[in-house]
Amino acid sequence: MTQPIREFNAEAIEAMPARSRAAFINALSGFKSANLVGTADAQGRANLAIMSSAVHLGSHPPLLALIIRPGGDERHTLSNILATGTYSINHVTDTIVEAAHQTAARYERAVSEFQAVGLTPCWRDGFKAPLLAEGGISLGMVLREHQELAINGTHLVIGEIVLACVPEDSLLAEGAVDLRTAGTVALSGLDHYHTTTSFKRMAYAKPDQPPRVLAR
Amino acid sequence: MTQPIREFNAEAIEAMPARSRAAFINALSGFKSANLVGTADAQGRANLAIMSSAVHLGSHPPLLALIIRPGGDERHTLSNILATGTYSINHVTDTIVEAAHQTAARYERAVSEFQAVGLTPCWRDGFKAPLLAEGGISLGMVLREHQELAINGTHLVIGEIVLACVPEDSLLAEGAVDLRTAGTVALSGLDHYHTTTSFKRMAYAKPDQPPRVLAR
Repeated sequence: MTQPIREFNAEAIEAMPARSRAAFINALSGFKSANLVGTADAQGRANLAIMSSAVHLGSHPPLLALIIRPGGDERHTLSNILATGTYSINHVTDTIVEAAHQTAARYERAVSEFQAVGLTPCWRDGFKAPLLAEGGISLGMVLREHQELAINGTHLVIGEIVLACVPEDSLLAEGAVDLRTAGTVALSGLDHYHTTTSFKRMAYAKPDQPPRVLAR
Repeated sequence: MTQPIREFNAEAIEAMPARSRAAFINALSGFKSANLVGTADAQGRANLAIMSSAVHLGSHPPLLALIIRPGGDERHTLSNILATGTYSINHVTDTIVEAAHQTAARYERAVSEFQAVGLTPCWRDGFKAPLLAEGGISLGMVLREHQELAINGTHLVIGEIVLACVPEDSLLAEGAVDLRTAGTVALSGLDHYHTTTSFKRMAYAKPDQPPRVLAR
């Protein structure tokens, strides 16, 4: 490739101003999911927080992990998950990007971000955390494991998907889901939301066969 | 929203055929990063494996986590990381999607996926793992923490970014990086690669100010 590359070693990264370093490092893992995590405290007061740390852990049982940093805006979410054992994970869609991003503001504990940003909680029988009523993909989660990571004090929260609400139109054959049709956006860095265009869907890779494009 | 929603409860998810469930659950976290993880064994034999589990853990120190499942195609990567304490994380770009996906095939340990799929290792002085020479964003990583997660036997691998190679053209002001200019793609599910279009870049959220779009 002829594209010029700039290199940043450990010292150069360390020397960056804190905000620039946060923006830079947050971009380096690649595109991220953007999800609204819905919770409630023991009194049933709702909370909604945007997070970009959801990661697939396994499909049987169906497990997702979140990395939550307890010092910042995410502290209410963590304490609510630990108090109730339930939470929801809701995809940020293109119709709610501005409201979703606004949930990152440091509202007081008594303030419901749903109300502050103009989104709608959906309460379901037997489930203590609100889901998002605006449509798009929404998941009901039950807490399965939790630990603080010694290396930097962030928390690893592992939950099982016990309910998946998925727009009919986005369901494809053999379990696949078309996230574009569901309206799901992708995030880069701290603040940059993207829509997506299907580029290539690839066949299952086998060592004795060349790569094969299934669809574009 | 008027979009019809289909609901899948825990029993419906459990009842899916294994391959469909894997495709379905892998889509539910949202868009994912697509990265090629470069490693070498103690004899210096190179390995390259596509992974979609990179997640930001913190920016000071700059830490990324990977979830690695030791039973499958990713077992050589895990044993190499543990043997050498180093690895590389390289963004999948639109020019190498087919080769990158092909690294998921179950090649024998002695086979270098670089050679099998036609990609180029870049060896650097003092770093035991190969980076990818094809351009795009590449990271040199040093292992900082490792644990097996009791819940499903996957491994959490935490590393520190000690080198970041980033295309000049993708560097924006104040540490931000334009992943589209870097060629980075987004993944959904197991096999669906997407290019992206900038939708909205949002200002830092504050509780006493409405959301503000910085750029489109």
